Parts: sequence; structure tokens; C-alpha cells
Amino acid sequence: MSDAVRLIEVKEEIHADNERVAQGLRSQLAQKKTFLLNLMSSPGAGKTRTILKTIDALRDRFRFGVLEADIDSTVDAELVAARGISVVQLRTGGFCHLDASMVAKGLAALDLDVLDVVVIENVGNLVCPAEFDTGAARNVMILSVPEGDDKPLKYPLMFTVSDVLLVNKMDYLGLSDFDLKAMRERVLRLNPRIQIFEISAKTGQGFDQWAAWLSREASSFIGPVSGILRDIRP
Amino acid sequence: MSDAVRLIEVKEEIHADNERVAQGLRSQLAQKKTFLLNLMSSPGAGKTRTILKTIDALRDRFRFGVLEADIDSTVDAELVAARGISVVQLRTGGFCHLDASMVAKGLAALDLDVLDVVVIENVGNLVCPAEFDTGAARNVMILSVPEGDDKPLKYPLMFTVSDVLLVNKMDYLGLSDFDLKAMRERVLRLNPRIQIFEISAKTGQGFDQWAAWLSREASSFIGPVSGILRDIRP
Repeated sequence: MSDAVRLIEVKEEIHADNERVAQGLRSQLAQKKTFLLNLMSSPGAGKTRTILKTIDALRDRFRFGVLEADIDSTVDAELVAARGISVVQLRTGGFCHLDASMVAKGLAALDLDVLDVVVIENVGNLVCPAEFDTGAARNVMILSVPEGDDKPLKYPLMFTVSDVLLVNKMDYLGLSDFDLKAMRERVLRLNPRIQIFEISAKTGQGFDQWAAWLSREASSFIGPVSGILRDIRP
Repeated sequence: MSDAVRLIEVKEEIHADNERVAQGLRSQLAQKKTFLLNLMSSPGAGKTRTILKTIDALRDRFRFGVLEADIDSTVDAELVAARGISVVQLRTGGFCHLDASMVAKGLAALDLDVLDVVVIENVGNLVCPAEFDTGAARNVMILSVPEGDDKPLKYPLMFTVSDVLLVNKMDYLGLSDFDLKAMRERVLRLNPRIQIFEISAKTGQGFDQWAAWLSREASSFIGPVSGILRDIRP
């Protein structure tokens, strides 16, 4: 029991430090007019494909960068780089989440003066990333249909801290007993203000609505200056 | 940077404490002739359904108990209890894994004298549970087809510490670009001794082979005494 108590104290200290760094990062990004989006999900829910399809939908409006978190590999970063998108790989070396200081290090390696929107692909995990403020302007999570409609009951914090829920792999719905209505009710009970979009990163279903939300949020954050910056894009 | 270093030191201390408790638990379970199986996976990979189907296949040979870990809910434990199986719910209260002392507390709530096999359903997470020895005799992980064949590249430790990989949701294979051969090669490169079974907890595919493995391992652990115990089952 004493082990557990000691662990909690350490966690609280780490969380307080992290919150300070995250707030500083948010101020810095507001000055730079860079919209930072934190994308979280289970392993294999479709984060990389969703990012690529989102950038395809909006790359004429915003200049995108990506921070790819991975415990050990660089496979996702290579996929993103192959599309000609600015990407930084953050290897967490075993850590189960990104914290704000890791994100700050990643951002320092990007040229924020020429980027409007930076997307963080967080570590695949429904638990730990929900506890750490990355300094992002908005948190988005993916729940994929094959994971099941009971996930809001089991991982409530993730659904509580997210501004948007993307229900991905809608193309699997026919094979599954996933109950969309029950899932929605469970999620809205935890977080009545969350936006829910049903998508498929494979077929493109639902990307119009999701991209419209992101475009609106990023535009209002960045403001009119970004339009001028975009005109001088090389 | 100093934050990260401090965190690592704490982690090492916790790991050393945990290893001691896990070894003690393993000795105790060997004396009790209770085979403890630790089942790990991402959220929604099918742990609960796999446990229920495994018990269905083997309940005439072994007396089963289940430890259900969950961060907040009791939904899985209720499903298991509804089948008349001895089950203890461990609410981790935000923790992303089970450690050996949490498992010891759960086992203390079961009557090990009348149980041959106890299955731990660990927290749904491919990262943290891989780092903590639970005291189990064997570690089993599930990778479900919709999660993708690249998971061994991204979560190598989980594949390294597991004795068995269950590739679940094989019934989704037709809809997916999951490459079984590439996945196998990636897994075997990390862990040449791992046993791989392709299953579907929905259709029952592959359960004969997986249940035969479990039966063999549990029988050789428990030994002939268990046969006598089973004869005096109430």
C-alpha cells in the first residue's frame, strides 16, 4: 500500500510541473499563431491514416506539420514524410505518453513561422496520454468501431478531456455489434460538449464534416494574419 | 530534462519492489498449485470474450477464477460473473497497469484451494502492463486484426515479454490489409520462442489449438494432485 501512495505523490508533482510547461507552450503558440492539435487513441485505431487524410483535405488552406510520437519505431513518421509534410519523430523510449516538455522539444525542431497547424500523433494508449496536458489548443481522440462501444465506460478520462471524438473505421460497422446510439449516450454523459464525427479514414466517409470543424477552429485561432503568410508560401 | 531523469529513477525503484513481490507471489502459487495467466492487449482487442470462450472450452478440466482489472468500471466482471465464474474486480483508479501487489490483493479475495487456473484480464494497454511482472506463470497477449500488422514495430516490449500471441478477430481479415506473414516475421524477430495462434473469439476459430496449449501448460504446472482435488469438487 505504501508503494502505491509514493507513486501517487510523484505523479502529482510531475503533473504540476507539466501543467506549468503546457501553459507556457500555449502562450508561445498563441503568439506564433500556430494551432496545435493533440490526437490520441488506442494502438491501431487509425491515427496516422486520419492525419494523412485530414491534411489531404485541408492542405490548400493551412500549412501542416506533424509531431509523431512512438515508443521505439519511426514507421509512422516515414509515411508522413513520404507525403512531403514537415514531420518530427519523438521517440519516447518506453514512455506511454507525451508530456508538454517533450512536445516543446519536438516543436523546437520545426519552423513554426511557416506552419499554421501542427498535429501531434500521441502514443497509442487510452490511459496515460489523457492525464498529460501537451499544450495543445484542442484534444481529439479516435475510437475505432472494432474496439467496441463500451470504451467510454472503461476509459472515461480520455473521453472527458477530448474536444472531439472521431468514430473511425465506420466501414467495419456491418461486421460488428457496435451500438452507435449507446456509445453516444455514454460519451455525452461524460462530456456533454464533445463533438462527435463518424468517419472512415479508409473510405473518406465523414471527412467533410470533421475537416470543416478543424478548419473553423484553426482559422479562428490563427486569425487573418495567416492569410498573408500563406501568400508567401514558397 | 531533469524531470525525465527523476521519473526514470522512480520507475526503477518501483520496478525493483515489484519484482520482489512478483517472485514471492509465484512461489506461493506454485505451492497452492494455482496456474496464473496474465492476459494483455490494447483496449477492445477482445480480452473478455477470449477469456469466456477459453473457459467454455476447458471448464470440464480446470476450475477457473478471473481477476478483472479496470480503471473505473465493472462491466467486464459482471459479464464473467453472469457465467457463474469466480471473479474479483480490481479497480486501478486511473493506473494504466496491474502490478504484483495489486494482483496479490485480488488473489487474496479468491479461494485458491478450489481454483486450478486464474486468468488476469490486465488493463487495456500495450505499453505499461508489459513493464510490470504480475507474478503470473505465463504472459499471453492479444493483437486483433483491425489494429494492424505494424504493432510489433511500435510496441516491441509487449511482444518480447509474452509467451503466447493470440491474433484475434480473424473474421475481420477479409476487410483488412493486415499482412499475417509480415506480422509473424516482425514478432518472431523480437521473440523467437513465442507461440502464435490465430483465433476468433466470435466464431471460435483456432480455440482448439489455443486451448490445447493452455491445457498442457496448466496440467504440467498443477501436476497430478489437481486431479484428486477435482474429484472432490462440490
